[in-house]
Amino acid sequence: MNTRGAAPKQDRSRATRQRLLESAVTCLAEHGWSGSTVTVVAEHAGVSRGAAQHHFPTREDLFTAAVEYVAEERSKALRALPAPTADTRAAVATLVALYTGPLFRAALHLWVAASNEPQLGPRVTGLEARIGRETHRMAVDLLGADEAAPGVRETVQGLLDMARGLGLANLLTDDSARRERVVEQWARIVDDVLER
Amino acid sequence: MNTRGAAPKQDRSRATRQRLLESAVTCLAEHGWSGSTVTVVAEHAGVSRGAAQHHFPTREDLFTAAVEYVAEERSKALRALPAPTADTRAAVATLVALYTGPLFRAALHLWVAASNEPQLGPRVTGLEARIGRETHRMAVDLLGADEAAPGVRETVQGLLDMARGLGLANLLTDDSARRERVVEQWARIVDDVLER
Repeated sequence: MNTRGAAPKQDRSRATRQRLLESAVTCLAEHGWSGSTVTVVAEHAGVSRGAAQHHFPTREDLFTAAVEYVAEERSKALRALPAPTADTRAAVATLVALYTGPLFRAALHLWVAASNEPQLGPRVTGLEARIGRETHRMAVDLLGADEAAPGVRETVQGLLDMARGLGLANLLTDDSARRERVVEQWARIVDDVLER
Repeated sequence: MNTRGAAPKQDRSRATRQRLLESAVTCLAEHGWSGSTVTVVAEHAGVSRGAAQHHFPTREDLFTAAVEYVAEERSKALRALPAPTADTRAAVATLVALYTGPLFRAALHLWVAASNEPQLGPRVTGLEARIGRETHRMAVDLLGADEAAPGVRETVQGLLDMARGLGLANLLTDDSARRERVVEQWARIVDDVLER
């Protein structure tokens, strides 16, 4: 009886937690760090402030968990990418798209906040390093690049730096038309450098 | 008498204003938007809160002026760059350096804050567009690139996007060793594409 009754309650609790984390990310992307308080996030999630505090006693707890959640979701997005493709333009566009959605926007706000918030700093830095390594490995696979060849590693790194810069350029204005032309040209360049 | 007496007073006032703007930029780079209040900035500048409010009655006034100040300083940094050089590696390193100093860091905080602060948004967006155009023109000059040739414009744009991404990567950790290797490889690539 006890275990049967506990399961749905646990499910509900997990669902509430999940909803709070999703809302934390949405609020970060929309209102930035300073606009994302526990109260704002709880309201967005349709959860009482008390229930939110049951899961995350402090703002720090909530956003520490949100950082991990963002990292997990970005990992999932990486693993969901297509297999290596001969279409370099599609591969570069796929990589760049990782940096233009709401997940990157939330990560960017965390990133910038972490540079000034001692309680966020080390955790965000660690997770960014992990995500950076995963993204690089995935980019190498997607492009079918041979990292043993000189310069290939730095080419892929620079390409991801460019993708990050394009994401930043997209923060204040819709930069998609210009971005498309940059992607097209750099796909050509990467084709040449990697001798695809 | 009157005019002679007024001049030093005006000079002092200008110097105070200048000091407040410099401090606003330093505080932004060090503490981010949410940590940069008028009180914090006045204290950093060694100016009384009253004197600060004489120059800038509201936080909005102060940071609106600071945005323009940052734009002006970035413009000055651009105009101070060396003449066109045959050394592509030096040219790329010069461009990338524009995105790794405290001025970019302050601009980044403003940029991210502007995405959520309606009073900052349009002003920062307008100034970023102006600075973006100036930077592009300067990069073309520095590289001696011929924009009439197909793909050259997008090559330079992508290079500046990469520089921006490298600046962002440098926010939480010292990324200089990796950055140097990326700059070296991308200078080689740009050499090939621009047929320098």
